[in-house]
Amino acid sequence: MTVSHGGQTGRCASTALSADVVRRLDVLKVQSSPVSAMANITKKVSWSGRGEEGTPLLNGSEEVKYTRQDAVRSKPKEIPHNEKLLSLKYESLDYDNIENHLFLEEERRMGHMSFRCLEISRWVICGLIGVLTGLIACFIDIVVEKLAGVKYVVVKKSIDKNTEIGGMCISLILWAALNSAFVMVGAIIVAFFEPIAAGSGIPQIKCYLNGVKVPRVVRLKTLMVKVCGVICSVAGGLAVGKEGPMIHSGAVVAAGVSQGRSTSLKKDFKIFEYFRRDTEKRDFVSAGAAAGVSAAFGAPVGGVLFSLEEGASFWNQLLTWRIFFASMISTFTLNFVLSIYHKKTGELSSPGLINFGSFDLKSVKYNIYEIPLFIVMGAIGGLLGALFNVLNYWLTIFRIRYVHRPCLQVMEAMLVAAVTATVSFAMIYFSNDCQPLETQKSSEDYSLQGFCADGEYSAMATAFFNTPERSVRSLFHSPAGTYKLETLGCFTLVYFFLACWTYGLTVSAGVFIPSLLIGAAWGRLFGIMLPYIALNPSVFTDPGKYALMGAAAQLGGIVRMTLSLTVILVEATGNVTYGLPIMLVLMTAKIVGDYFIEGLYDVHIKLQSVPFLHWDAPATSHSLTAREVMSSPVTCFNRVEKVGTIVDVLSNTSTNHNGFPVIIQTAASEEPGKLCGLILRSQLIVLLKHKVFVERARSRLRQRKLQLKDFRDAYPRFPPIQSIHVSQDERECMMDLTEFMNPTPYTVPQDTSLPRVFKLFRALGLRHLVVVDDDNRVIGLVTRKDLARYHLGKHGLEELHLAHT
Amino acid sequence: MTVSHGGQTGRCASTALSADVVRRLDVLKVQSSPVSAMANITKKVSWSGRGEEGTPLLNGSEEVKYTRQDAVRSKPKEIPHNEKLLSLKYESLDYDNIENHLFLEEERRMGHMSFRCLEISRWVICGLIGVLTGLIACFIDIVVEKLAGVKYVVVKKSIDKNTEIGGMCISLILWAALNSAFVMVGAIIVAFFEPIAAGSGIPQIKCYLNGVKVPRVVRLKTLMVKVCGVICSVAGGLAVGKEGPMIHSGAVVAAGVSQGRSTSLKKDFKIFEYFRRDTEKRDFVSAGAAAGVSAAFGAPVGGVLFSLEEGASFWNQLLTWRIFFASMISTFTLNFVLSIYHKKTGELSSPGLINFGSFDLKSVKYNIYEIPLFIVMGAIGGLLGALFNVLNYWLTIFRIRYVHRPCLQVMEAMLVAAVTATVSFAMIYFSNDCQPLETQKSSEDYSLQGFCADGEYSAMATAFFNTPERSVRSLFHSPAGTYKLETLGCFTLVYFFLACWTYGLTVSAGVFIPSLLIGAAWGRLFGIMLPYIALNPSVFTDPGKYALMGAAAQLGGIVRMTLSLTVILVEATGNVTYGLPIMLVLMTAKIVGDYFIEGLYDVHIKLQSVPFLHWDAPATSHSLTAREVMSSPVTCFNRVEKVGTIVDVLSNTSTNHNGFPVIIQTAASEEPGKLCGLILRSQLIVLLKHKVFVERARSRLRQRKLQLKDFRDAYPRFPPIQSIHVSQDERECMMDLTEFMNPTPYTVPQDTSLPRVFKLFRALGLRHLVVVDDDNRVIGLVTRKDLARYHLGKHGLEELHLAHT
Repeated sequence: MTVSHGGQTGRCASTALSADVVRRLDVLKVQSSPVSAMANITKKVSWSGRGEEGTPLLNGSEEVKYTRQDAVRSKPKEIPHNEKLLSLKYESLDYDNIENHLFLEEERRMGHMSFRCLEISRWVICGLIGVLTGLIACFIDIVVEKLAGVKYVVVKKSIDKNTEIGGMCISLILWAALNSAFVMVGAIIVAFFEPIAAGSGIPQIKCYLNGVKVPRVVRLKTLMVKVCGVICSVAGGLAVGKEGPMIHSGAVVAAGVSQGRSTSLKKDFKIFEYFRRDTEKRDFVSAGAAAGVSAAFGAPVGGVLFSLEEGASFWNQLLTWRIFFASMISTFTLNFVLSIYHKKTGELSSPGLINFGSFDLKSVKYNIYEIPLFIVMGAIGGLLGALFNVLNYWLTIFRIRYVHRPCLQVMEAMLVAAVTATVSFAMIYFSNDCQPLETQKSSEDYSLQGFCADGEYSAMATAFFNTPERSVRSLFHSPAGTYKLETLGCFTLVYFFLACWTYGLTVSAGVFIPSLLIGAAWGRLFGIMLPYIALNPSVFTDPGKYALMGAAAQLGGIVRMTLSLTVILVEATGNVTYGLPIMLVLMTAKIVGDYFIEGLYDVHIKLQSVPFLHWDAPATSHSLTAREVMSSPVTCFNRVEKVGTIVDVLSNTSTNHNGFPVIIQTAASEEPGKLCGLILRSQLIVLLKHKVFVERARSRLRQRKLQLKDFRDAYPRFPPIQSIHVSQDERECMMDLTEFMNPTPYTVPQDTSLPRVFKLFRALGLRHLVVVDDDNRVIGLVTRKDLARYHLGKHGLEELHLAHT
Repeated sequence: MTVSHGGQTGRCASTALSADVVRRLDVLKVQSSPVSAMANITKKVSWSGRGEEGTPLLNGSEEVKYTRQDAVRSKPKEIPHNEKLLSLKYESLDYDNIENHLFLEEERRMGHMSFRCLEISRWVICGLIGVLTGLIACFIDIVVEKLAGVKYVVVKKSIDKNTEIGGMCISLILWAALNSAFVMVGAIIVAFFEPIAAGSGIPQIKCYLNGVKVPRVVRLKTLMVKVCGVICSVAGGLAVGKEGPMIHSGAVVAAGVSQGRSTSLKKDFKIFEYFRRDTEKRDFVSAGAAAGVSAAFGAPVGGVLFSLEEGASFWNQLLTWRIFFASMISTFTLNFVLSIYHKKTGELSSPGLINFGSFDLKSVKYNIYEIPLFIVMGAIGGLLGALFNVLNYWLTIFRIRYVHRPCLQVMEAMLVAAVTATVSFAMIYFSNDCQPLETQKSSEDYSLQGFCADGEYSAMATAFFNTPERSVRSLFHSPAGTYKLETLGCFTLVYFFLACWTYGLTVSAGVFIPSLLIGAAWGRLFGIMLPYIALNPSVFTDPGKYALMGAAAQLGGIVRMTLSLTVILVEATGNVTYGLPIMLVLMTAKIVGDYFIEGLYDVHIKLQSVPFLHWDAPATSHSLTAREVMSSPVTCFNRVEKVGTIVDVLSNTSTNHNGFPVIIQTAASEEPGKLCGLILRSQLIVLLKHKVFVERARSRLRQRKLQLKDFRDAYPRFPPIQSIHVSQDERECMMDLTEFMNPTPYTVPQDTSLPRVFKLFRALGLRHLVVVDDDNRVIGLVTRKDLARYHLGKHGLEELHLAHT
């Protein structure tokens, strides 16, 4: 009762495809041979003439025809990361509850009080997530500050000792060596222990919240590596921020706490077992991400909006409140611990880690004639952001192709660290922007004399030598005249390219703060230049305001968030007056930037060939129907199925499907069966592992009873089918799937338009959607990849290809 | 091919029901006779033993059996508004696109550019919504201020003239008469012209966004009456705010602008025709409501969150941005116009209408030991809010039963106005809280000397005689010692009962500001009392902070919003530091309040028996399946149906159904047909109106071609079936529904659990969900009422009854 599928739909199509792929690969000057590229493509659904192919072949009993055309000849790592491909390696999360008999029985047994207890547990978990995320954020912040302080003292001493030119070289080398050492440690743990911890983590969390199971992204090991990695890279003086990693950390904490156990540590606390499924876990991960944002920026509302913007499909009020609660607790914990650390125990009013400082109440005014200026700044931010993204895109392509060995990656990271130090040093050396040193400077300011006269300090050195957060604050709030035009111009230029080079290195590092810093620099530049070109110079006295707008524009141009970013910036600056201009700036930046290239996170998601579902189906896709979109023919099981058949289907590596419709055979055995349920690979694996089958002769006997607990214990790391031994005798046994399958899977008729299918799939967070004909017979299956394939390109609707990468 | 349904499911059930209803009505001491109550109940689905009744009766050709048991004897207005009933008079909005052939053809014809143009139109419409909403808010604000100013001058003159006791009576009478006159005008236009304009409008908008079509709620006339009404009631000195009506106004503006025509004015601009359907209209109404919040509180982000909290089911990023844009433009317009009005053209930093004033930077600190105090305040707010809601609930029941004639309603409103004036006057008279008049008082302050010595002013008079917004600001920001303990205590007590009495009068008026005022008063009282009971009185020097928390607690206790309210308050006070305490306070208030009674808006929605869908199905409802929930048997049509049959079904007033599955008859005529589509009453009406049918003999001929335009022109006020004349000859014609029906309606199998059905229904905003058996044959239909019926009561799952009210 099982048939092959998923292989080639026919020799012709396959050949046409490979020619097509070769052409594409040629364009990208791919290093691998066409043959290996062909071998990597297992599925191609030709664009036209597919409507007639949907005839179900459910009754055949042919053997699986899997022709692995050729062994992969070139190294697998050099597979071209073509953005026209969708990887098949990513599984989906199932946001739809598997409402099988076991589940319904449990739900029906539960009284009103049990549900209330569950609800309370959810709040408790969210509280825990908030506390832990806040503590981790504190830890990162305090350790980074300590390390940066030590480094500052060492380098400053060296500079003070060696003021002549020859001596400066020693300081430079010392500085570069220190930075490289920090970065080396950070890069090594990432590259060798947990490569998924590289980067900001936001693209990965975005994918996870979108419903893609990114392997290892929410594991304890990832968290460890991420935290240590980000401390090293920030302390190493790279042009990076620590905010993205905090968001990722929050998500990992959430995924861990909510399950009440650690699979890595092999420790099961036997609590929260009810939450051991994708639906609940994803909700908690949303809360974790929000708590991370909240800790990083002191922006609880912004955190909630971030989670919603990135992850939500179905807005649920109660869930939103829990997310809000987690965010709130996270900010609270952070503020409380920091207030103890800063010896002001109990003063909770300092907002978050990134305190950009409040703007003076007198200076927070703006006038209507400034609105066009803000919009122009938004446009500049959009352009610069697009440039940043394009450069980083090329760089990433280059890295994927040539810098894929861990040792190479570590060396690149060290190189960047050394170059960053050298360039900064050179800038400080050649800059002549000396400012009088004020006596009431707080001890926290790392102002450097540099090459200025005594009693003065170098503005350039202050900009480069500080932590990026402090530099941003200085750019926002320093009185007019603190920075010279040339200083800001050079700084913008240099930091722009440094940050662009840095993002995508094999270190844990975020892009928020560098973007803000670049933007604040050119924004202040813009503000300083205004009086020179304006008719009435006296009105443009405060460049700090423009620094803020520039920061917003640049960050918006790079990451293209709007609503959540507005709120985050408003909360981080502690003032709502600039809300309106910030919104305008972010919107302009997004519109301008989107004209050229997508946001940075989306670029990276695309380069990973992740089947990411956007909010809506492409506008012009009404001409497609479920019949054309679905995967077909589809492997089905009978309600009572032979164990051997199940094992064979699951072991078939060519069709690595995870969901199988269950059908009832009708009297007329010619006809395909009617749909009566849906069962997942993971469920079958658990059933096989527990040997839940009966001998054929005694199929009336009750098979071994499984509990929901057995499934929950195995979640989420279900063993592969290869690890389960099934003897030849057992292969002849039968397995009754009735109790375990989901008896009411969502279905659509075959004529349903793609937008309609998409809406159903996206709104409910489905993993498999069964396509049936008028008689309720299975004719196909729609999965995430089938929908993510279509996108609106320059020339109308385009289709991505599926590939094993 | 049509069968009766929806009447009684059997004599037995009906009798059981009526007994049940009588018992319930007795409890409520209902005035109408049991017979009339029975006549009003048309449908009762008994709780148990319904599983077997689902057998489809689709093939019968029985005539419709409609037995109107008795003429309704008692006046229809006196129907008991029992919260255990669900009214059948409300239709649903259809958030699901009707993807019939016409629609798909149009979509397929449209190129990429057309979709882009549509998207731009959407933004333009949102911009217009923002501008118009902002202007209306300005208009209301300025007119109220002018009128209040005139009133102030007149009364002040009178008081100044007649300071002796006898003369005071003249002033009192003058004041009361002025107020009553204003309120009379406001009440008359509401009671006689547009009763739906009564109240804050937020419950109605909540229902609309939830998907319930509340009649006349988004009409131009409603807007007119609302605007004039709110001006009159605020100017009339009632304990009301103007914020709720502004939100309603925004929604009406949105519904009007987005359709490109006014049905009331019979003016069609022939633009935005694409948006003439429920899906698009509801999106715009969300934007309008958000723009209203944004204008009222100067809180664009709060507005977006309000819309989402109240209305969203499927969170869509693009839609959210458009809503945000509308909010932003609204605040901008308002600020710009007000800046001109206040002669500071172009200064945009003043936030919104309700500027609660920024807190001094030095005073915005709070400490960890204050957190428990805030939580206690939240609990008090929750208790007081619950008390408010309970009192208002009883009052509303009383009003529904006894005060339902328009003239009575006007008289009650006038009475309240007179009492408000008298009580205020008495309070001022008996209060001895005299404060020294400061010379630098701004001209805007209406400080009254009252009965104080020269050079002093009466604090009580200031609190009562100001607009509530000003009083709130004064309570937040006046330095410690401005108000005496007794003043605040009396004020809280009196204003609480006045506000409670006022809400629900037949005038346009909101409850936000009165709630804030009550809360601010007792919050300040709390703050003043703290030093007396604290061990270390010196730390509690600023009662303004506690006034803010009290305001939040009281408002939260009454309306039970959390996320959006936090953001609104943060934006209205212009400071994010208090974000965390406000959240805590609101959460506590909600938890405490929910223990006793629902939020005020929900209470009123329930009293209207609106079939409101909450976020999730009741937790313990897994034991119910679609088969038990659905309405059955269901009226179906054939693909090609006799006109007479259609007219008969539509004319049947007992089964006022709006959606009809379309079926194909299988060969074996015994069997019920298979589902092939779904058609709406409104579509059939348009088809009948355009006489889209062919004679039976020539059914092969093409019937008249209808365009989507014909449907859009008829939207949203489809004529009733009675207005369409169909001759006897025409009754014999046939109508081909194939092109017009939705060929791919969403379906569920009959065993689907209620939560699963609910989730599908809610997430996609459906209006009809077809329940099918294994062979895809229609066996039932789930509508909003079938789902809204179930709710979690004190004794587990309860079921509401459906009634024609």
